[in-house]
Amino acid sequence: MIALLPLCSIPSPKTVLVVGGGDGGVLREVSRHPSVEHIDICEIDKMVVDVSKKFFPQLAVGFQDPRVHLHIGDATEFLRHAPKGKYDAVIVDSSDPVGPAQELVEKPFFETIARALRPGGVLCNMAESMWLHTHLIQDMISVCRETFKGSVNYAWASVPTYPSGVIGFLLCSTEGPPVDFKNPVNSIEKLEGALKHKRELRFYNSEMHSAAFALPPFLRREVSALCHSSTSTLPR
Amino acid sequence: MIALLPLCSIPSPKTVLVVGGGDGGVLREVSRHPSVEHIDICEIDKMVVDVSKKFFPQLAVGFQDPRVHLHIGDATEFLRHAPKGKYDAVIVDSSDPVGPAQELVEKPFFETIARALRPGGVLCNMAESMWLHTHLIQDMISVCRETFKGSVNYAWASVPTYPSGVIGFLLCSTEGPPVDFKNPVNSIEKLEGALKHKRELRFYNSEMHSAAFALPPFLRREVSALCHSSTSTLPR
Repeated sequence: MIALLPLCSIPSPKTVLVVGGGDGGVLREVSRHPSVEHIDICEIDKMVVDVSKKFFPQLAVGFQDPRVHLHIGDATEFLRHAPKGKYDAVIVDSSDPVGPAQELVEKPFFETIARALRPGGVLCNMAESMWLHTHLIQDMISVCRETFKGSVNYAWASVPTYPSGVIGFLLCSTEGPPVDFKNPVNSIEKLEGALKHKRELRFYNSEMHSAAFALPPFLRREVSALCHSSTSTLPR
Repeated sequence: MIALLPLCSIPSPKTVLVVGGGDGGVLREVSRHPSVEHIDICEIDKMVVDVSKKFFPQLAVGFQDPRVHLHIGDATEFLRHAPKGKYDAVIVDSSDPVGPAQELVEKPFFETIARALRPGGVLCNMAESMWLHTHLIQDMISVCRETFKGSVNYAWASVPTYPSGVIGFLLCSTEGPPVDFKNPVNSIEKLEGALKHKRELRFYNSEMHSAAFALPPFLRREVSALCHSSTSTLPR
């Protein structure tokens, strides 16, 4: 979901940055997209990559794609030096926002992402559990609303291994061509037909994509005061 | 969800049977519907009702509605004596289908429900976790397909307290006026405006209703061979 929600929402993504994601799973899903020409991944911990290659080959397979360029280092630093407008999409697959990952939910980090995205480019950021972390979600939405001038949306998916069984995603776009996150412009069903090495998707399809943006009233009420944009699924 | 998915899918439900549900929570949600005139509840264990009234008043409040008629007994027996075509909707809020509740996922039970429903009446049955019980779900769909001549649909919702964080619902209709479960004909947003005692919904809205029918490919593949109906969201 974290890779396909943003990449199916824009036409022909070419240049993608993955922040974290050292296990390779996000890369594997980014690689599905034939339009993608260049994938940077900035992972702070080389051991995550090594361990994944040794023990989780089905995830680490993502590193085998020749379009992938691995950078070991701090993504906040990496983004400060990234050329302005370089990326069509940035995907932040980080650990929980405590300790070293705290910076990844703060405004300066989002500002460097917005700067590194082309106009109408998209960010997908892990965004906690709607059942457990409503206030943290509110804070992230608030910061992103200030930073991203396109749309700001919240989506979620059922993942039994996360606490409370769900994980959320914050989807933002920069000022430019409007992005309607809820209705994928670049549907996976079309892409799958075009792929040479077809690996069946087990969880994602266009129907699940749209359904991910349906929010229960308790969450909608909490975040409603903070969200904006003409294409947003969140109320003003 | 278990009460609102079926009751928002048919116009003006009047007569409803709840099987199990002795805590009163389903009754509370059925009571939202101003068109409902008569609610039977058949709970096998009186102690569930008593304990809920003592310790869970926010659920047990459902019993205070004068339209509610409590029957303590075995629902399989209750349904055998129910007048044919009596109910607009039957809601089965049972425990897991092992031991004494095993009968509640078997064909004779579904046949008595189909008999007790009016033409175009609906059943909503708890239907396990898509992550854990695919084969059981397949079996239930298979039996319901044989029994219900209208549509057979599967929906699910995030409930952190269930194993794997989700619970499923099997929605079936009898032969008669077609029921499009995915697009609620009797939307809660309209009902809420009409209610005298407005209690805010926290999880359900029409958007969540429709999203509940989005199924991941792994589940869709498993159940696709078994499902039918022109209005079903499940492939033939």
